[in-house]
Amino acid sequence: METGDALSLWVTETHQNSMRLGFKVEKTLFSGRSRFQQVDVVQTRDHGVMLLNDGLVMLSERDEFIYHEMIAHVPLFVHPNPRRVLVIGGGDGGTVREVLRHPGVERVVMVEIDEMVVNACRKYMPEVSCALDDPRLELRIEDGIKFVAETEEGFDVILVDSTDPIGPAAPLFNKEFYSGVSRLLTEEGILISQAESPFYNQEIQRPMLLNQRPFFEKLHIYLFSNLTYPGGLWSFGFASGKRCPLKDFDPDRPARSGIETRYYNPGVHRASFMLPTFMSRHLEGVIDPLDAAGLEA
Amino acid sequence: METGDALSLWVTETHQNSMRLGFKVEKTLFSGRSRFQQVDVVQTRDHGVMLLNDGLVMLSERDEFIYHEMIAHVPLFVHPNPRRVLVIGGGDGGTVREVLRHPGVERVVMVEIDEMVVNACRKYMPEVSCALDDPRLELRIEDGIKFVAETEEGFDVILVDSTDPIGPAAPLFNKEFYSGVSRLLTEEGILISQAESPFYNQEIQRPMLLNQRPFFEKLHIYLFSNLTYPGGLWSFGFASGKRCPLKDFDPDRPARSGIETRYYNPGVHRASFMLPTFMSRHLEGVIDPLDAAGLEA
Repeated sequence: METGDALSLWVTETHQNSMRLGFKVEKTLFSGRSRFQQVDVVQTRDHGVMLLNDGLVMLSERDEFIYHEMIAHVPLFVHPNPRRVLVIGGGDGGTVREVLRHPGVERVVMVEIDEMVVNACRKYMPEVSCALDDPRLELRIEDGIKFVAETEEGFDVILVDSTDPIGPAAPLFNKEFYSGVSRLLTEEGILISQAESPFYNQEIQRPMLLNQRPFFEKLHIYLFSNLTYPGGLWSFGFASGKRCPLKDFDPDRPARSGIETRYYNPGVHRASFMLPTFMSRHLEGVIDPLDAAGLEA
Repeated sequence: METGDALSLWVTETHQNSMRLGFKVEKTLFSGRSRFQQVDVVQTRDHGVMLLNDGLVMLSERDEFIYHEMIAHVPLFVHPNPRRVLVIGGGDGGTVREVLRHPGVERVVMVEIDEMVVNACRKYMPEVSCALDDPRLELRIEDGIKFVAETEEGFDVILVDSTDPIGPAAPLFNKEFYSGVSRLLTEEGILISQAESPFYNQEIQRPMLLNQRPFFEKLHIYLFSNLTYPGGLWSFGFASGKRCPLKDFDPDRPARSGIETRYYNPGVHRASFMLPTFMSRHLEGVIDPLDAAGLEA
């Protein structure tokens, strides 16, 4: 380094020894090791504050609005009257922030296994974690698997805002878990689950959806952009006993709600379920087919 | 390196000193310096053969089908009867490969400034460059700007398959060029142009579309995924004197054509024009608004 050059600091995530994503970092804000994982928070140059678990980017302030709007508003605008919502994971608080924008939501239970993530995001990402003290929220620091197995409470919408199916989140992709979740859902209930990359995680996506299939009449997958995840294209599973994500969606409802969004809108809602051909082929026989107009075939 | 470890070879692209994309490389297949740029072809571990110009990833065999299907099939299925097509750039041959799948196309002129790119792709990416010897194609190694200024030939569809607006491609984003292009287009003609990242290139996207606006009654932008470009979300501009990309699109036409695709389909066609709210706000007053059903408002 020549005299006067600033330190060139980058955080780099390597995916499957195949591709890498790196972000320019100005400084480390927090590093800790919880019972479950390594937790790091860094100030990046152009992506705001960023959270990493075990060296993998979880979210950045620059693009987190996309993930959080898409996990929350798609089901909450499809369910006829969502009042009770369960969030598994989501320790940064972004998902409950979006859920609580819906004035009809009376109660949210968020079950996050790792308190260190919650505390780090409370301190360093206030714009993401800002709803964690909402009086409608019950925040429980415990294992989501155990909570789902033991609770007797019913929910209208359940959001699985999990990390990848390695480490603590692995059982969140299992058939036993989906069976438990389906037991908690009310009659019109909807399950949304983080469903990985359609490019890089095909070997996860199909088994995950197959594990959901026995418990839900309606099963779909929808897409959104994520700047800071490998490949930039990511997905959520949509599972329900009754509700179709497009047929049962009223495109005037988001505007009526008065909720302001930066990514989600009725056009994006419908577009997100239109899958590239390679995806619909790979998932044929697992998810329900949709025609080009978004109607069930 | 300990004895027995393989060489850890990566090609890494740094974007705006802000983010990096890297790909694991097995070996370099070609390196050369043309009059215009550095040209490298590498064999990656998991992304097939990859072309880089001046150190920036242009395409990989793994995901090139997306870019090339989306630049070609969207306009060719909107134009009522595309017979003559002009491609500016596109030296790898992927765009003309997709264009020439349309049996109604009688003549394609491809104008690429850098013969080194064409020759490298002919040799190392045969599945991309395979249509470069099609008898319907006239391949011209010359400056696309000059060709557009001087030719008297008319075209139904013009595809600007360019690199970023730095170096040799910069004039392809100027008002003079779009004026010349609009002069060559037939009555129902359509111009498609590479329109950069909606996340990282907002400072390019709006001026570029503003430069097109005076010459086209209809102006839109549409989205697709690109694994190997920063952020993973990319865009093309759609400009036409008469044709609307959705109202004038018959969703049964792709199936009738018999053309097989891996990304493009009628649902994806329509979905690709549904913009996230942050994009439609940024481009308000520049592009034509569409409602959630894809109709012009």
